[in-house]
Amino acid sequence: MDGPNALDRLVALFSRLPGIGKKSASRLVYHILDADPSFARSLAGELQGLHEAIKRCSRCGSFTESDPCSICTDTTRDHSLLCVVERAQDVRVIEESREFRGLFHVLGGLIAPLEGVNPGDLSIAQLLGRVRDEGVTEVILALNPTIEGDTTALYIQKFLKEKLPSRPLEISRLASGLPVGGDLEYADRLTLSRSLRGRIKM
Amino acid sequence: MDGPNALDRLVALFSRLPGIGKKSASRLVYHILDADPSFARSLAGELQGLHEAIKRCSRCGSFTESDPCSICTDTTRDHSLLCVVERAQDVRVIEESREFRGLFHVLGGLIAPLEGVNPGDLSIAQLLGRVRDEGVTEVILALNPTIEGDTTALYIQKFLKEKLPSRPLEISRLASGLPVGGDLEYADRLTLSRSLRGRIKM
Repeated sequence: MDGPNALDRLVALFSRLPGIGKKSASRLVYHILDADPSFARSLAGELQGLHEAIKRCSRCGSFTESDPCSICTDTTRDHSLLCVVERAQDVRVIEESREFRGLFHVLGGLIAPLEGVNPGDLSIAQLLGRVRDEGVTEVILALNPTIEGDTTALYIQKFLKEKLPSRPLEISRLASGLPVGGDLEYADRLTLSRSLRGRIKM
Repeated sequence: MDGPNALDRLVALFSRLPGIGKKSASRLVYHILDADPSFARSLAGELQGLHEAIKRCSRCGSFTESDPCSICTDTTRDHSLLCVVERAQDVRVIEESREFRGLFHVLGGLIAPLEGVNPGDLSIAQLLGRVRDEGVTEVILALNPTIEGDTTALYIQKFLKEKLPSRPLEISRLASGLPVGGDLEYADRLTLSRSLRGRIKM
């Protein structure tokens, strides 16, 4: 069949989303067609207004409706504690753990020279400014335990120590190890070696 | 964080799509936020117009921009051959195989008494009308090889034979068996037994 064009166009757009191939995109579009038209209209309305409603916080770089964001302006949080994350969505993940009561700083990526991402492309200078001027005493580098994450963490640690040599500043990384509920048998070699090195006294 | 509301609303809407949990929905929304705003606007535009642009063909029941659809009005296709499918999206799947040159009939579901779907809820009466009035000589039941699919196929076969006793009408089902490129070792018992019963002479 020549195919209904509006349908194909929407399938093509959905296919551009991460993790959604052409088959899944079709399934989504047919689901929307089968659903009540109000669902498609709600989706359309939210998407239409998304970029107007959601900005980046000028202080921490996370997505927000008000600038500065509700985390940066929350006086009940510990402003001396800064959690550095790669992307804005990582803020949500960490917030959902309810384990952290400090502020955030979004780097906007990880150092990856082969992909052309250098330290200057990330908000590392802004991080230095915040650590220097905002009374930060501890920085937690909550970056992915990957080569890029490790490289970036190491770079930031050296950079901050170098630029603020006389400042007492604690810098830490997230613990790496076995996932809770995981199985030794299925852990890869690297994860296992990290969880051994980082073993915790009982 | 209180969370940006526009973002949460969109995540909630995306989570209602099949196969998309809350985590995937977040990932999609953050991807859209990171992408050029024109992408969100395109998606919004297509979704907004979707239900106006895409209707159901009044003859076969598939989704189409023009009624009757381009398949039903295509005079180069074999109008004596009717392929019965469960849902409108199955039309696309079969069209993409480029193996079928007849017309379609969308049932709108499968008989499933436990879920309250009875023969009267499907377009089986319309199917009878089309077979009787439109010179159909062969009906292919392209339903899923599941209990519901088998039940529905059997029901339709009996129903058509009963209502059109003197009509020479060939009724067939799709072959069931090993998927191409599949491995005997991984085939389940039922599939294997079906592919044995349906073995093909060489």
